[in-house]
Amino acid sequence: MGVIDDVRLTPLSIIPGESGDIMHALKQQEISFHGFGEAYFSTVQYRAVKGWKKHSRMILNLIVPSGGIRFVLYDDRPLSKTYRNIMELELSKKNYQRLTVPPGVWMAFQGMSAEVNMLLNIASIPHDPAEAENMSVKNELIPYSGF
Amino acid sequence: MGVIDDVRLTPLSIIPGESGDIMHALKQQEISFHGFGEAYFSTVQYRAVKGWKKHSRMILNLIVPSGGIRFVLYDDRPLSKTYRNIMELELSKKNYQRLTVPPGVWMAFQGMSAEVNMLLNIASIPHDPAEAENMSVKNELIPYSGF
Repeated sequence: MGVIDDVRLTPLSIIPGESGDIMHALKQQEISFHGFGEAYFSTVQYRAVKGWKKHSRMILNLIVPSGGIRFVLYDDRPLSKTYRNIMELELSKKNYQRLTVPPGVWMAFQGMSAEVNMLLNIASIPHDPAEAENMSVKNELIPYSGF
Repeated sequence: MGVIDDVRLTPLSIIPGESGDIMHALKQQEISFHGFGEAYFSTVQYRAVKGWKKHSRMILNLIVPSGGIRFVLYDDRPLSKTYRNIMELELSKKNYQRLTVPPGVWMAFQGMSAEVNMLLNIASIPHDPAEAENMSVKNELIPYSGF
């Protein structure tokens, strides 16, 4: 369903070992790193949806180490080359990539597995409700009906 | 089994929601934050042990969002007030705390649950094999026989 400018997908390594795996998330030297504000986990139940949410300053770096999560993004930046584009993808340990989301893009996500669906967000700034907007799953703005 | 100087345990919040939880990990402003070098996950199978390992520069910030992990630490800093102390603890979503480990302390950890035992390390510097030492589970140095 198309792409969105400045949204970056970066394949990550999983290094298997005898006792368990090492799963990369983010390094300081990588181009997706825009400063460390806060790291937190968010879990989402099977079939449940969290969102929509849009940040005015925070850059998100999202990794899914457990379960599967479907992300839907909507470009709400009038000056963007991809204004009003929708982008949809699913991340999991099987499709182990980092999703970098710039400010000005709405995001919602849905739990896709009966296991624990968990994301880690390594956010560029600490949580600040003043820089985030929320909208309900069904709304007049975003032309997405897949939830 | 005692404590080790500069090792910090910080209780973390889990904020339940209708569709899932938010689980805090680390904020820039917290006293445990010593710079962002790299974030990675490490999984450890039920009853398996990873370690021992000691860093000369990296400060670890460890969070266990899934399963249960037992950590054993051994203070190998001759000038430390707690030189040769052993510290043992288990982290999980039920005992949801962040473990901060300074350089000079040996660490090993063990998977304690049949689910996925997973830690997140938010490390102060990127991975660098030159600043880490490894030792096998059974060794002459560390007076610990619990594995």
